[in-house]
Amino acid sequence: MNLILLFPEEVQGDRVTLTDHRAEHIRTVLRSTEGDQLRVGLLNGPIGTATVESVARREVALRLELHGPVPLIPPTALILALPRPIMLKRVLAQATALGVARIFLINANRVEKSFFQASLLQDQGYNTALIQGLEQAVDTRLPEVTIHQRFRPFVEDILPAFLADFPVRLIAHPTATARLPEMAPVPLSEQAILAIGPEGGWVDFEIDRFAVCGFKGFSLGPRILRVDSAVPALLAQLELLRRLTPRAS
Amino acid sequence: MNLILLFPEEVQGDRVTLTDHRAEHIRTVLRSTEGDQLRVGLLNGPIGTATVESVARREVALRLELHGPVPLIPPTALILALPRPIMLKRVLAQATALGVARIFLINANRVEKSFFQASLLQDQGYNTALIQGLEQAVDTRLPEVTIHQRFRPFVEDILPAFLADFPVRLIAHPTATARLPEMAPVPLSEQAILAIGPEGGWVDFEIDRFAVCGFKGFSLGPRILRVDSAVPALLAQLELLRRLTPRAS
Repeated sequence: MNLILLFPEEVQGDRVTLTDHRAEHIRTVLRSTEGDQLRVGLLNGPIGTATVESVARREVALRLELHGPVPLIPPTALILALPRPIMLKRVLAQATALGVARIFLINANRVEKSFFQASLLQDQGYNTALIQGLEQAVDTRLPEVTIHQRFRPFVEDILPAFLADFPVRLIAHPTATARLPEMAPVPLSEQAILAIGPEGGWVDFEIDRFAVCGFKGFSLGPRILRVDSAVPALLAQLELLRRLTPRAS
Repeated sequence: MNLILLFPEEVQGDRVTLTDHRAEHIRTVLRSTEGDQLRVGLLNGPIGTATVESVARREVALRLELHGPVPLIPPTALILALPRPIMLKRVLAQATALGVARIFLINANRVEKSFFQASLLQDQGYNTALIQGLEQAVDTRLPEVTIHQRFRPFVEDILPAFLADFPVRLIAHPTATARLPEMAPVPLSEQAILAIGPEGGWVDFEIDRFAVCGFKGFSLGPRILRVDSAVPALLAQLELLRRLTPRAS
């Protein structure tokens, strides 16, 4: 936890009292005492500092100065064929730590239907993983997560409404012949949306539907990665493409 | 498991009989029956195909044709400040899947000394994780793993012997001002060695010792990543730098 993330509804003026895992973290990991300064952030708001006013066994009181910058919304969105719940939790935290504006969790032919019953998907149970990602990465911008149990309505009705926001549209699939630098603008300067398939990959029909939406296919190369490696790998590659300058040729 | 990995000592001529998790995988996941073809690889040797000769409750017999290519040794090595055991296991599998020639697991000021007692580190217990990575990525080249409980002898006596093999030497640390594309050749064509620090980062002394060995520091940016995101992210970024061509500017 590199940032103590606060929620607007718990902050009273410039004070907040924590009683949950954050209080525990401040007390036992950071070992903060009265007068110490901590890095805090307000959900979807600014990053700032907090001064510890008191540390008790069950609660920690903080005085806030939330005058720092509001993090920018990351320029990348992720479409993810729903992985198994234990993997999903990890991947949501990873994607949030690497920085994504939105995550579309979608069905695909090779997604096991039972995965949609995961408790993580009920009542925004995934928020815990997203918040963990923000606390890790020192960010306050909660990605918007939506769940789409039917593939076709997603690609035909929902996705098209977002396409104008994401001029760069990429889909990873093993049988593509091109690699990422051939299919993405280098350097990458626009908003990008990236689709990552299930174990076993997308089926042709799915690739075709994404192609209709302007998604360009690329291969990660001959090595097949699990989704908890593929997601950080690809988000990091997009980030690197954003950092390249014409000098870097 | 995208490849059934075989060990030279278990292969007899062009036959092998499996009785462990691989037999279980062939039987219950792949649901192979007599005559089916499987993708197999020989540890540190060629990739090929196997024909299923028989499937019984406790064993699967295969006839091998190992005439495919021998995978190249990946052009990247990793120096990793030893993470906690549960994380180490995952990271070793991830690094192997992404492709590394060697992994040096080293001590650092912010590594908890107890991590070196992990059962994963006794009697090459980590091999299970490495093999999982190979089976995932369809590779046969087992990374060489060495464990270095003392930082200073590692950087002063052991590391220097490898430096000539790795003309590109990079160390990730949050306080560096440069980013990866400024510190690595673009495109990257030579062998590279990458050092990734512990939670909380390297201390100045450690950075200095790596600098003496010609390591250039770079920052991943403002987002702080856990090691199970940082390792795939950075290995993938190096891989992308290898794929860039002068066209890609």
